[in-house]
Amino acid sequence: MPNLYVALAHYPVVNKNGAIIASAITNLDLHDISRAAKTYGIRSYYVVTPLEDQQALAKKIIAHWIDGSGADYNPSRGSALELIHIKSSLAEAAEHIECVENEYPQIVATCARRHPSNISFEAFRGILEEGRPHLLVFGTAWGLAETFISKADYVLEPISGIREYNHLSVRAAAAIILDRLIVKK
Amino acid sequence: MPNLYVALAHYPVVNKNGAIIASAITNLDLHDISRAAKTYGIRSYYVVTPLEDQQALAKKIIAHWIDGSGADYNPSRGSALELIHIKSSLAEAAEHIECVENEYPQIVATCARRHPSNISFEAFRGILEEGRPHLLVFGTAWGLAETFISKADYVLEPISGIREYNHLSVRAAAAIILDRLIVKK
Repeated sequence: MPNLYVALAHYPVVNKNGAIIASAITNLDLHDISRAAKTYGIRSYYVVTPLEDQQALAKKIIAHWIDGSGADYNPSRGSALELIHIKSSLAEAAEHIECVENEYPQIVATCARRHPSNISFEAFRGILEEGRPHLLVFGTAWGLAETFISKADYVLEPISGIREYNHLSVRAAAAIILDRLIVKK
Repeated sequence: MPNLYVALAHYPVVNKNGAIIASAITNLDLHDISRAAKTYGIRSYYVVTPLEDQQALAKKIIAHWIDGSGADYNPSRGSALELIHIKSSLAEAAEHIECVENEYPQIVATCARRHPSNISFEAFRGILEEGRPHLLVFGTAWGLAETFISKADYVLEPISGIREYNHLSVRAAAAIILDRLIVKK
């Protein structure tokens, strides 16, 4: 089982003009990424936003499926959403991992564009086999802010399909990346 | 470039009790799967529903991003959604492919459970290399009806993660399956 944690950042991310913003929670980001995380044995899934009303919204959605009427209707939703921790910042998420693991995690940023410090999927698979904790961070909106990416320990190479088009949704990108990192082909 | 077409069926699919239903359109199914289809060079993406109001809804969403104000806001959405054709049935989708290709496509069903006639990802990759047209069909709700699956030419093996949990969203499953089928690892 890989010692891998996942975070979805709603801050610091950029909008279409490159300005740093805090984006809004998307309901299906909670569901789809938690279900992929559960499938691939991810230890926790951090949903990161500094906005208190957005934190409350995410908690309300999750509670519906874990404790509310959603739990009876479809228990497999709740068992995935239980992996979620809501945090105010990526630093808080990393500190939470440090409490659990007794070691501060290595931070791995994702980005749809090539980056000078990219590591390949294969290289990252090898690093994960060493067993140290890693936090893999996905960005919402137009992606993680460069100020965050440039301070990460690693930047994972982008997914390349067979065309120039590189506008996968974060839900699709997270699913593909977990599949590439974790399942032996 | 693979000679591969994708369909998302809202009928015939089953609900949690196994009854055959027509499910509702989900906005992000249009976006996420068209963006993945565009990334992986899929020829067309058929959104299949017999319900006329649901067809109208899908058309309205697509028009917003291709011709409406969404086209200026984010042109990469429209260039993916252009792959979508709305059809009333899976047979209509297959007939549309026959018009384009001059050959009726082989039908490949997907299912989250193991099936006696499963073919592996590797086997299907080999079949695609022969160049004949194939229609890969995903089900919404609790999945494609067995009446449809049992008549398909092939049933693709399910995605297995590293756990028993097999409740990926159709958006995530479609993205992973296209990545496994099309990108050389």
